[in-house]
Amino acid sequence: MPETVSTPAVVSADLYQEIHQFYARHMYAGDSGDLDGWAAGFTEDAVFVSNGLPEPLEGRAAIDAATRAGHAARAGRGAVHRHIVTMLDVRPQDADSVATRSYVLVVESVPEGGSKLHVSTVLEDRLVRADDGWRVAGRWVSRDDLPAAPATS
Amino acid sequence: MPETVSTPAVVSADLYQEIHQFYARHMYAGDSGDLDGWAAGFTEDAVFVSNGLPEPLEGRAAIDAATRAGHAARAGRGAVHRHIVTMLDVRPQDADSVATRSYVLVVESVPEGGSKLHVSTVLEDRLVRADDGWRVAGRWVSRDDLPAAPATS
Amino acid sequence: MPETVSTPAVVSADLYQEIHQFYARHMYAGDSGDLDGWAAGFTEDAVFVSNGLPEPLEGRAAIDAATRAGHAARAGRGAVHRHIVTMLDVRPQDADSVATRSYVLVVESVPEGGSKLHVSTVLEDRLVRADDGWRVAGRWVSRDDLPAAPATS
Repeated sequence: MPETVSTPAVVSADLYQEIHQFYARHMYAGDSGDLDGWAAGFTEDAVFVSNGLPEPLEGRAAIDAATRAGHAARAGRGAVHRHIVTMLDVRPQDADSVATRSYVLVVESVPEGGSKLHVSTVLEDRLVRADDGWRVAGRWVSRDDLPAAPATS
Repeated sequence: MPETVSTPAVVSADLYQEIHQFYARHMYAGDSGDLDGWAAGFTEDAVFVSNGLPEPLEGRAAIDAATRAGHAARAGRGAVHRHIVTMLDVRPQDADSVATRSYVLVVESVPEGGSKLHVSTVLEDRLVRADDGWRVAGRWVSRDDLPAAPATS
Repeated sequence: MPETVSTPAVVSADLYQEIHQFYARHMYAGDSGDLDGWAAGFTEDAVFVSNGLPEPLEGRAAIDAATRAGHAARAGRGAVHRHIVTMLDVRPQDADSVATRSYVLVVESVPEGGSKLHVSTVLEDRLVRADDGWRVAGRWVSRDDLPAAPATS
């Protein structure tokens, strides 16, 4: 669970749109094989925690390596994933940082093999503003079909 | 079918964002077991009509009771639901009231049992503004896999 | 693949909301059987290209005819489709034209037969502004479960 401050504020439509657009382009990059573009969406020292991973990934390089391994495994069986961010809630933390929560569906397709819902997750991100857009500083993924992540020591 | 006035107006981005945020937090509350928070999203005299229910629910207390029964039944078999509001269309009715229509997917997950699309629905709500946000005054749910609701007498 | 100019600009929240609303009403019209309303969402000379079609559809009349045939086939077996536009990215091309990209899920329901994910697609549209709203001038659909469209000669 991310350490974020809960705020009741309604985010402005403009900031919400900026964040939504970040996700649309970030996920499209990862799904379509632009893995450099996807990795650029994380800060150098980003952490990525998931109850689907044996341990947290620490740093952009580790996140990038794990993503490439997953992408290669999918490509090997001809599968494509689409990460669909829905129900996005944005809570400003300070001028250059927001906490987000969303439901992310991952849809898997195999040519001539149809499409199916692969996993349902709750995504909690901490995003920070950079000169050229937003980056993920911390990501916490909870798959609904797996037990909750154990507390990290 | 809700009795609403159809208006061609384009809703402002700020109002749209307010309504979208209401749904993100309302559905998250219900899905994650904050049933008090979920019930607080309805007015005292709200009505809830669905072709998946034997009869309309009248009043927040009746809606709350039905929700708790459904949640307990799911918890008993370890299932989690995610209500995913998509294609949200917002039509202002007057300064303090909007009609909405959306497609809502309900995704069901069972730990170690995977995730699947449970139902596809069309949701039509009438929302009214309160001091601390929006509340549902009327909800009409039409599940796509069931016959249309009979007219209520 | 549509011939569009890629621009890094962040679209305004108001324009984004206009486009999102267009899709909500356009798809609802088609899904709910208002096929005149759906056809009116295309320009007279619109093109519709899909790797799920044997050849591109050229002009609103051809798009309308193909849509009616598909709708009649679904109605014949009692099926309803919902086109769910997600992860919408809007890139202004000029004052009266935008390029969009989204993930579109098509969910199919059959009364008493449940609901399932039918197809997962990437949708790329070119929209142009008309007096009374937006219209599709060009649509490129890529189903994730089919091979990429061959280049058209």
